[in-house]
Amino acid sequence: MVRIIHWGLGAMGTRIAALVRDRADMVSVGAIDRDPAKTGKTLDQLLARVRLPAVPQVLTKTGQVGDRGTGSPSPGRLNGPAGGIVVGSPEDVLQTPADLVILATGSFVEEVAPQVILALEHGLNVITIAEEMVFPEATAPDHAQEIDRMARNRGAVVLGTGINPGFVMDTLVICLTGVCSQVRHIMVRRANDLSPYGPTVMAGQGVGLTPQQFEDGVASGRVVGHVGFLQSLGLIARALGWTLDRIEQSREPIVARLMRETPYVKVPPGRVAGCRHVARGFKNGREVIFLDHPQQVRPELEGFETGDEIRIRGQPDISLRTSPEIPGGAGTAAIAVNMVPVVMAAEPGLRTMADLPLPRMVG
Amino acid sequence: MVRIIHWGLGAMGTRIAALVRDRADMVSVGAIDRDPAKTGKTLDQLLARVRLPAVPQVLTKTGQVGDRGTGSPSPGRLNGPAGGIVVGSPEDVLQTPADLVILATGSFVEEVAPQVILALEHGLNVITIAEEMVFPEATAPDHAQEIDRMARNRGAVVLGTGINPGFVMDTLVICLTGVCSQVRHIMVRRANDLSPYGPTVMAGQGVGLTPQQFEDGVASGRVVGHVGFLQSLGLIARALGWTLDRIEQSREPIVARLMRETPYVKVPPGRVAGCRHVARGFKNGREVIFLDHPQQVRPELEGFETGDEIRIRGQPDISLRTSPEIPGGAGTAAIAVNMVPVVMAAEPGLRTMADLPLPRMVG
Repeated sequence: MVRIIHWGLGAMGTRIAALVRDRADMVSVGAIDRDPAKTGKTLDQLLARVRLPAVPQVLTKTGQVGDRGTGSPSPGRLNGPAGGIVVGSPEDVLQTPADLVILATGSFVEEVAPQVILALEHGLNVITIAEEMVFPEATAPDHAQEIDRMARNRGAVVLGTGINPGFVMDTLVICLTGVCSQVRHIMVRRANDLSPYGPTVMAGQGVGLTPQQFEDGVASGRVVGHVGFLQSLGLIARALGWTLDRIEQSREPIVARLMRETPYVKVPPGRVAGCRHVARGFKNGREVIFLDHPQQVRPELEGFETGDEIRIRGQPDISLRTSPEIPGGAGTAAIAVNMVPVVMAAEPGLRTMADLPLPRMVG
Repeated sequence: MVRIIHWGLGAMGTRIAALVRDRADMVSVGAIDRDPAKTGKTLDQLLARVRLPAVPQVLTKTGQVGDRGTGSPSPGRLNGPAGGIVVGSPEDVLQTPADLVILATGSFVEEVAPQVILALEHGLNVITIAEEMVFPEATAPDHAQEIDRMARNRGAVVLGTGINPGFVMDTLVICLTGVCSQVRHIMVRRANDLSPYGPTVMAGQGVGLTPQQFEDGVASGRVVGHVGFLQSLGLIARALGWTLDRIEQSREPIVARLMRETPYVKVPPGRVAGCRHVARGFKNGREVIFLDHPQQVRPELEGFETGDEIRIRGQPDISLRTSPEIPGGAGTAAIAVNMVPVVMAAEPGLRTMADLPLPRMVG
């Protein structure tokens, strides 16, 4: 029974907690969130709002986390404020006897590194869905080194994972190169639908802007597109023993020709429906990796099919397609939870998806 | 530099040796084959016959294995009979200072277990493409236990791999379940073209027989279809923590409607062009895994597309397709060689693809 502390109970953190509640081999023993609307509530109260088809919406009699009346885990362990109650102060919760923190607070190493360090100071393993932590060397080598050193000292494991970065554009690609004796070029395209996402994601992708506003937003850094290309490129290169001498990125607006509407945004023709973000990695002056990530709202209205596509040119060629794309939200929550037993069995240190045994669902 | 002994220089073993010759991080230091037509020849002489687009057909001046004039490996290590010359007696070659044996001699645990044991007695790691060794517990738990115990005693690693079993119907499937929080059913279909294969494979698949002869062949065991279903089912179940309570298999003839001809066989209409071999795994009385492997000569003549297809029903659903199939010969040779560095870094014992870090091509 792995004892888990949830740090960050936004959309993703709550989803993850709901999955942990459903696992027989894990138990939630603490929860941290700085949002005053959430502190003081029980995890079960927060999870009751999560509507996931796979998660039975059963509120237990005691209101304790993980107590699904199956006889285990022992209810005693779940009592006390750090068990079922969401607390604002990390230090208070991290005192709780626990094995692992699932960190779902931010995307960037700068944001989460202090949180990772704090968890490590309490001897806890960490799994985070922070995009940049999938391969922190890419943007923050000093933080990566410090985290690795500290994890080894404390006998703990730190892993960044998620659907992308973390799986579609790196882990799955690396796994497929395993059946190649030569890889000349890797192309990955992930075309997905942004319709389920809210205002924050819309803003980061420039949805609803005029094309000119989009270009200005790219220039000013307000339109970021996808966070994860540098990590996917870095992880592939590391795994394959490649040294990339140059990385290029571009962000282009996907302009609507028809009205595209979601619960959160209304994009008339001529406005931006999404962002096509592309990254290219070069080795010895030649492009060897091409990552293409067009993300938009209501792509089906203009006949754009969503899906993940991987093409490896080499010996042999491999051409693979998922249809539709592996969904980002459900997939990220699942892989974060599925990696728990793998992380618990791993050697101490900062690990990547490429260092660890295959991900797999257990249960 | 990993020093490799090649045991078995048939079609696959020769391909593997050609790939090792092309790797900067490995060197072939010995070769074993019982075929009198091969013993006494140098590996380079045998490899000169292999026509692989990815492998430069360079014969070295000295005729020594691995010496591609790049300055390394040191030529001294490659001298002597066990270096470049194919030898019939395993005991003689296994004296050579080496790190790992790549075993490509047979499909079944009963055949290769004594060879694995002999290699372990010499303290050597083993990678084998014997289909049943991908998960030897499935058909030979006693052998598996003995190999595991001996490998641990000797500080060596033993791994069975290949494209199928070893990748398409197990490793890749397990990896994909990593992004699922629930898996209700797994379907894998691998539709491939048998045209490149010779008489042995044709006989095992019943190609050229009448439908009645095919049925008789299935009954007598001469028509075997695919070797690997029990291993793929076992490996998936082990990784996912499932207990299968029943496995069913069926073999059906694929009857030609048009003339299908290859260099090795001519199948007139009404005769068998291939075998559709299916396996089903049941858990708590319900089918949870369906593996479908139609193999035939010249499928394109009747409009059958080849490819690998994986459908996971769960949370979320995943639907993936490669087109065409990942080729069996090239893929098996590549993954056997690609797993060498992974095996060299692994903990001693009998390992499976699901225990080890992701496969990947290095170079």
